[in-house]
Amino acid sequence: MGKLTVNVKEHTYDVHIGTNTYVLFETEYKELLDSADRIAIIADEHVATVHLPMLQKALRATDRKIEVKTVPAGERCKTAAVYVECQSFLLNKGFTRNSLIIAFGGGACGDLAGFVAATFMRGIRYIQCPTTILAHDSAVGGKTAINMPEGKNLVGSFHQPSGVIFDASLFQTLPAKEVRSGMAELLKHAFISDATWTMELLESPAFSKPNVDWLSIELLRGTQVKADIVAADEFEQSTRKFLNFGHTFGHAIEAVCGFGGLSHGESVMIGMAYSLILSEIDGEIEKSLTDAFLHFAVKNEYTFKPVHEHSFAVFMEYMQKDKKASFGKLYFVLLQRLGSPFVQEVSKEQCEKAFEELKKRTEEMI
Amino acid sequence: MGKLTVNVKEHTYDVHIGTNTYVLFETEYKELLDSADRIAIIADEHVATVHLPMLQKALRATDRKIEVKTVPAGERCKTAAVYVECQSFLLNKGFTRNSLIIAFGGGACGDLAGFVAATFMRGIRYIQCPTTILAHDSAVGGKTAINMPEGKNLVGSFHQPSGVIFDASLFQTLPAKEVRSGMAELLKHAFISDATWTMELLESPAFSKPNVDWLSIELLRGTQVKADIVAADEFEQSTRKFLNFGHTFGHAIEAVCGFGGLSHGESVMIGMAYSLILSEIDGEIEKSLTDAFLHFAVKNEYTFKPVHEHSFAVFMEYMQKDKKASFGKLYFVLLQRLGSPFVQEVSKEQCEKAFEELKKRTEEMI
Repeated sequence: MGKLTVNVKEHTYDVHIGTNTYVLFETEYKELLDSADRIAIIADEHVATVHLPMLQKALRATDRKIEVKTVPAGERCKTAAVYVECQSFLLNKGFTRNSLIIAFGGGACGDLAGFVAATFMRGIRYIQCPTTILAHDSAVGGKTAINMPEGKNLVGSFHQPSGVIFDASLFQTLPAKEVRSGMAELLKHAFISDATWTMELLESPAFSKPNVDWLSIELLRGTQVKADIVAADEFEQSTRKFLNFGHTFGHAIEAVCGFGGLSHGESVMIGMAYSLILSEIDGEIEKSLTDAFLHFAVKNEYTFKPVHEHSFAVFMEYMQKDKKASFGKLYFVLLQRLGSPFVQEVSKEQCEKAFEELKKRTEEMI
Repeated sequence: MGKLTVNVKEHTYDVHIGTNTYVLFETEYKELLDSADRIAIIADEHVATVHLPMLQKALRATDRKIEVKTVPAGERCKTAAVYVECQSFLLNKGFTRNSLIIAFGGGACGDLAGFVAATFMRGIRYIQCPTTILAHDSAVGGKTAINMPEGKNLVGSFHQPSGVIFDASLFQTLPAKEVRSGMAELLKHAFISDATWTMELLESPAFSKPNVDWLSIELLRGTQVKADIVAADEFEQSTRKFLNFGHTFGHAIEAVCGFGGLSHGESVMIGMAYSLILSEIDGEIEKSLTDAFLHFAVKNEYTFKPVHEHSFAVFMEYMQKDKKASFGKLYFVLLQRLGSPFVQEVSKEQCEKAFEELKKRTEEMI
């Protein structure tokens, strides 16, 4: 079992990754559980069907009554309606400022449960028990949110968890699409932090079929990148923006293809390709690297179809709603070199050119 | 024009109270307005009908395009539906992380607009322009919230404003009920901080018909009490709870009589009477003081009818949902002496006894 510590202002918490980690509820997290007058699991309904008994068994050992609220699977839980439903659930079960939430599901469930925790009676404690690879990104750092019809993660809060406990054995039941989604974010952490590691991943034969032990180590590495950035810039005033590498265009892809149509990481994969193309102009990224990345992506069954199926204007509309946009200008995280990100204003014309370029280069791949 | 400064961690802002204060948009707040890519007023629809042109005129001098979103008057705006509507409004107007909200209305409008600001793209800046006396309480301190069918202010955030600008001349159009509501909170600030000031207010002939100059001074005094407490305990870990004097029972009254039926301050007035009776037992408050308070309240047209119209059980149900409740126990802010508050656990039996006592003592007053 691996562990790292996230240091944010006035709050420190641990992230545990490995197998058999839920025993921690009886040891390291016993005091936290004991200090809560009520405990609820907010669980993704699909995850709950398969894995809830395992979590409940671990918690049963703590001899506490645990309420369970299941929510729609995946992004479908991140609506205002489900958010309000969760608040009512807690109120009707008599939850107070001293209660505790355990988020059990992928990144979406964690984002929702985190936002519920952030705003229930102006903030209660919560533990993240992520069940997807992708969630190694979202479960750490305290960003919580729900989606709006206008776009993803547009309403939310910063609210740090009291702990993050991954049981990596749960990843074995993930569908291939979900593995791809999570591995894309892992790759993102490599891209913005470390050239050697990036190349290692791009050359890894196990990338889309990772085994639990290798993956636990890699995820700890990815999480450490995120933890370091969050510690330096909790509220995204500066360097935390780097974590959005691939996300400006990625979110637009995700929105256009309908939340849940293409997975988050699959969308970010397209977004990273787009950012690499922009980085060829504004950074020192070689065309050959971008092309290698495109081949790697296709080889691992990522798709570039959306850029061929929709016009630039459709994506542009969403990009203008990006949270980094300001005074009508678009800002992208680009790479000077592998491992060296920076934020750059990009004109609409340049955006369109990069879009056409991405289309051209992936034409024969789809 | 009077001014005081609120010092919270990593954020300092000013509160201005007086007449002709909106000129500050052209002076002290010009830089803030210039730094925002978009500006919206979220306004109480009743307040907007009468006073919006005045605010717009002041802002027009800054040469900015200002969006206006009106919301239902009073507590009716503090619903999840209106909250989501405001978020959509901002998104459709192209608002970003660098945008600014101006809350224009009473405490309810400020709570709603503040919660919208707290969670729009995980937090944007906002200015409070309160239009009621009551809002001298809620506009300062950063507590934002909406109501749930289960009770008041149950979902929200801590999010400090960038400034609070009162134009006290607006108070002249307030209905008597609203004046009573605001003055009750002023009295609360006296009760928890200063015996002499409390007695001054209880003996003041102008209490329910205050003139603008006297009121500006008194409100600055009340706001200072709040600002000092908030500076010491922003997130209500300890002394900030004192600000809830009269509110545990007060919120129950408000909930039972339906949000908007009895005003917030009118409900708190009953809650303070209740807390004084509890303080006769657990503190050193004399029965004669409580009785003087009851007479003062009735003389100033506050009502005690609700305690005669509903059973104890009805109020108890709401008190158990109070945010100070924990592990099934109820906590009240009581007074050791005038000006010396403390938090005390109170048993259900004691609560019921105090309820019967309040009923008995106000029997002939209603």
